[in-house]
Amino acid sequence: MPELFEPKVTSTEELASSNAKWISLKKLHYTDQEGRSRVWECAERRTRGASGVDAVSILVLLKSKTNAFPLSTVIIEQFRPPAGKYVIGLIDKDETPEQAAIRELEEETGYKADSIAESSPVTVADPGMTTANMKLVVANVLLDDKLETPDSKLDDGEFIVKRVVALDQLHDELINSRLSHLASGYNLAQRIAKGL
Amino acid sequence: MPELFEPKVTSTEELASSNAKWISLKKLHYTDQEGRSRVWECAERRTRGASGVDAVSILVLLKSKTNAFPLSTVIIEQFRPPAGKYVIGLIDKDETPEQAAIRELEEETGYKADSIAESSPVTVADPGMTTANMKLVVANVLLDDKLETPDSKLDDGEFIVKRVVALDQLHDELINSRLSHLASGYNLAQRIAKGL
Repeated sequence: MPELFEPKVTSTEELASSNAKWISLKKLHYTDQEGRSRVWECAERRTRGASGVDAVSILVLLKSKTNAFPLSTVIIEQFRPPAGKYVIGLIDKDETPEQAAIRELEEETGYKADSIAESSPVTVADPGMTTANMKLVVANVLLDDKLETPDSKLDDGEFIVKRVVALDQLHDELINSRLSHLASGYNLAQRIAKGL
Repeated sequence: MPELFEPKVTSTEELASSNAKWISLKKLHYTDQEGRSRVWECAERRTRGASGVDAVSILVLLKSKTNAFPLSTVIIEQFRPPAGKYVIGLIDKDETPEQAAIRELEEETGYKADSIAESSPVTVADPGMTTANMKLVVANVLLDDKLETPDSKLDDGEFIVKRVVALDQLHDELINSRLSHLASGYNLAQRIAKGL
């Protein structure tokens, strides 16, 4: 799929909440710890389904059976209009449960998960500003000697660049906050293990 | 400061973008990789200042000079109306630069940073939904034998519960997505170091 143009935001306009299809603004009335009535403003996705979870992100662990390559993962690069640029993140899907995420992993990357290493509790993405929530699924993919990169099956109009990267190199990439935090935690534990 | 009431959200109403003080809704017009005109909806904080960064989070590393306690950090627990419950996260401040964060650390926790271990690039919090961005600052605090917990100086009407926790226990807490990802990365590197 040839990329012909550099995507870019050309203009921005105020959007009335009543005209928005995907997001709404809410005013929350709440009582605080001293019993006082207070208000809070937040944004909400209109798309949350019956599962109650907005999204699932997948951290794939590509492991060599023979230690032929360092533990690696798959990151994707997508133009994100709210950031106005390409952002690197994990594969994610506006859908649950975990099985849908595993199916999505195979469709988007060609990798087939051997097992699920971990499925996080529901966490909240930016709880001062939005109601958005998510789960993180860690999936194992066992490979032989070669760090194969199978073909993905992208939908028409999907522009996603897939990249395989060693986990300890993740921190040098321009990434979203969640993935950046994951890389910080990973590198921190490695530094500690080395006594730094 | 005695906590007399359990905080709770009592009602929710639609909010017109024109009546919102803190957040606005935007419609972005952009051109994609094939040159087509498209639109994207997102939420934006109205409070971003000259720095261009919405917030700074601080990961404090409490280290014992004598290995008397495991590497620990300070997490805070706050009622977050958009989540409708208490959420655990890192200390954060809607302000930059790093120096302001270090000052805030001392005010909110009583801990004085000895050095800054790391200051992340600007990352985007939830780039499919909002323009919100942030930096992560990792600060070292060296302590002697005792894991001291100095007093914080909270503003009136601030209800923040501070807790010291060992880094490798972080994953058992109910936390926001960024902190959860940090804990996942940390635990993953630890498991690998142990050959699991």
